[in-house]
Amino acid sequence: MRIDPTQIPAIMSKFAHLVEAPYGDFRGIADMAQEIMTPETTALLARTVMQDPMGAKALRDRPRLGEIDLQALAAMPEGTLGCRYGHHMIDNGYSAPPILPVSDAESYFIAHLVEVHDIWHVVTGWNTDKAGEIGLQGFYNSQLHPSQGFLALVAKNLLKTALEDLEQADDHMRALVAGWLLGKKVKPLFGVDWKPLFPEKLADVRARFGFSDEPPISLASR
Amino acid sequence: MRIDPTQIPAIMSKFAHLVEAPYGDFRGIADMAQEIMTPETTALLARTVMQDPMGAKALRDRPRLGEIDLQALAAMPEGTLGCRYGHHMIDNGYSAPPILPVSDAESYFIAHLVEVHDIWHVVTGWNTDKAGEIGLQGFYNSQLHPSQGFLALVAKNLLKTALEDLEQADDHMRALVAGWLLGKKVKPLFGVDWKPLFPEKLADVRARFGFSDEPPISLASR
Repeated sequence: MRIDPTQIPAIMSKFAHLVEAPYGDFRGIADMAQEIMTPETTALLARTVMQDPMGAKALRDRPRLGEIDLQALAAMPEGTLGCRYGHHMIDNGYSAPPILPVSDAESYFIAHLVEVHDIWHVVTGWNTDKAGEIGLQGFYNSQLHPSQGFLALVAKNLLKTALEDLEQADDHMRALVAGWLLGKKVKPLFGVDWKPLFPEKLADVRARFGFSDEPPISLASR
Repeated sequence: MRIDPTQIPAIMSKFAHLVEAPYGDFRGIADMAQEIMTPETTALLARTVMQDPMGAKALRDRPRLGEIDLQALAAMPEGTLGCRYGHHMIDNGYSAPPILPVSDAESYFIAHLVEVHDIWHVVTGWNTDKAGEIGLQGFYNSQLHPSQGFLALVAKNLLKTALEDLEQADDHMRALVAGWLLGKKVKPLFGVDWKPLFPEKLADVRARFGFSDEPPISLASR
């Protein structure tokens, strides 16, 4: 599938803008994704997601995170997903994720992924430094393909590494590879209804989705 | 290390041009690399290369491929590196690689990598389709880091996948990951003096550098 070539200058201009923006401009990418995604490309991604029964169910039921109270989550018992997620958000200075409107499959993909982004950080174990974001992007591309937005996000951050953090080149590629491998190893996370899982221990939630404490492959430095 | 921000518009313009160029514009990337590489970034890359005694020797001796006769190579005994390489070049319609001038460490990196690019295709087993090029780029980033040029090359091809070949997203990411892992598993190829190896069997050359017939990790489709 080839994008209409007349669209490319506008996409490249958004891309160049993202390269110069700071990390964590996830909404900038969501905007770009919204512009690029079409019913046709959404159908391709949905085909992958629906290979998993939970993914298929999620695309029918469209579970939402809705309003959440970060302080209340952080006050949940130690070691629960809710507690860990609440602290993750507060410690990073984040506010609760936006509740984007959903009217169709495209807008559900985007709204869901935006609202669960930091839950995925907590569950996968990737933190929010640059390598952690790139690791999580490897995970996205592994589980949620094909996606123009997630490919563009990795491309943006590899270019950003070249321009701004060249010394981290190997660490960032290693994170990308490890994140991608992890995504193939564990169960799909798309469409998980996280709210009922907040009271569970993070370790149990991780085990439920097939995460283990070992890295997916030995990625020892050379 | 952060590139002078005033350089970024020119780099992004070259990058956008590469995204719209067909695959295999390796010289376009070499030009871009030449523009970006400085004694400082070359020193970072050289530090990685010199961790291997052969790499350190190569940076001192600067072995060159020089003039080669593809027809004569293709006529070498069946199964030799020379024969396989000669056929690879002729079957792809390529002419012998250019002999770029070398005056310093930067220009040696570029000249050497341009002239051995297709030998690496033959030795690593990655062919010249899009996934093969991306696999080889994973290998480059794995063995030759940090490199602005190789990061930009992967970024370019992931963006190109998003814009032109979205259905191949998973195959291309899989190739990138497999190539990166392979690069960590085998011995460094930078600076190999290939000419004396042309009469050897490809299987023996591969074994010498630690390539096996098994993939570096199970990358079964999901």
